[in-house]
Amino acid sequence: MKKLIFENETLYIEKEDSIIPWVKIFPKKECKELSDCDKSTRDLLINTMLTVEKAMIEFYHPEKINIAMFGNYLPKLHIHVMARFKEDSHYPEPMWGKEQRENKLNLPSFDEFKKILQEKLK
Amino acid sequence: MKKLIFENETLYIEKEDSIIPWVKIFPKKECKELSDCDKSTRDLLINTMLTVEKAMIEFYHPEKINIAMFGNYLPKLHIHVMARFKEDSHYPEPMWGKEQRENKLNLPSFDEFKKILQEKLK
Repeated sequence: MKKLIFENETLYIEKEDSIIPWVKIFPKKECKELSDCDKSTRDLLINTMLTVEKAMIEFYHPEKINIAMFGNYLPKLHIHVMARFKEDSHYPEPMWGKEQRENKLNLPSFDEFKKILQEKLK
Repeated sequence: MKKLIFENETLYIEKEDSIIPWVKIFPKKECKELSDCDKSTRDLLINTMLTVEKAMIEFYHPEKINIAMFGNYLPKLHIHVMARFKEDSHYPEPMWGKEQRENKLNLPSFDEFKKILQEKLK
């Protein structure tokens, strides 16, 4: 499964199909809201979110990191972590907002980032 | 200042002017990204976010909690916590997405929720 980029006993991470660097972190033990997770799962989700954030900052030097937990369509907790750039299609709107321009990004390969992230998450 | 609903030494909480229950949590020591905050500030932000989430669930019984950290317009970390309902203006889209319908919500008073939240955050 190509979109799966990491997993351990507690969680897995998928790549979102997008022009920006965007991953989604899912707990394996499903819960609807973050406060429904047991504490150790929640702590690991938050720490993993921070590791992804820091890895994106280091690798892509984005304008801003965007984080979201919605789950309205599928009421199953997951955390979106996105690297945002002034030149991306929606900036400064969220990726769910109105498109602002044709995408002009020219980013280093996600495969390279994936390798670095996998190393950091080990 | 009417929109300020809570503060302590580390953070403050504002009400967002919206038809849905929506608050924003700001650290007093400004940082751009969550990973830029010192650990004790970050832990308190996350715990406060969870307290707000649980208080909203208990008081409003929403369809889903939505959480977001964007800060693209103002690159200063803050956490949005929103209670979402099937009948709200944007559901199941995020509040930043396309409006889906005229708002049909009839919710209990935010002032009542504010009092309960303030009590829980003490």
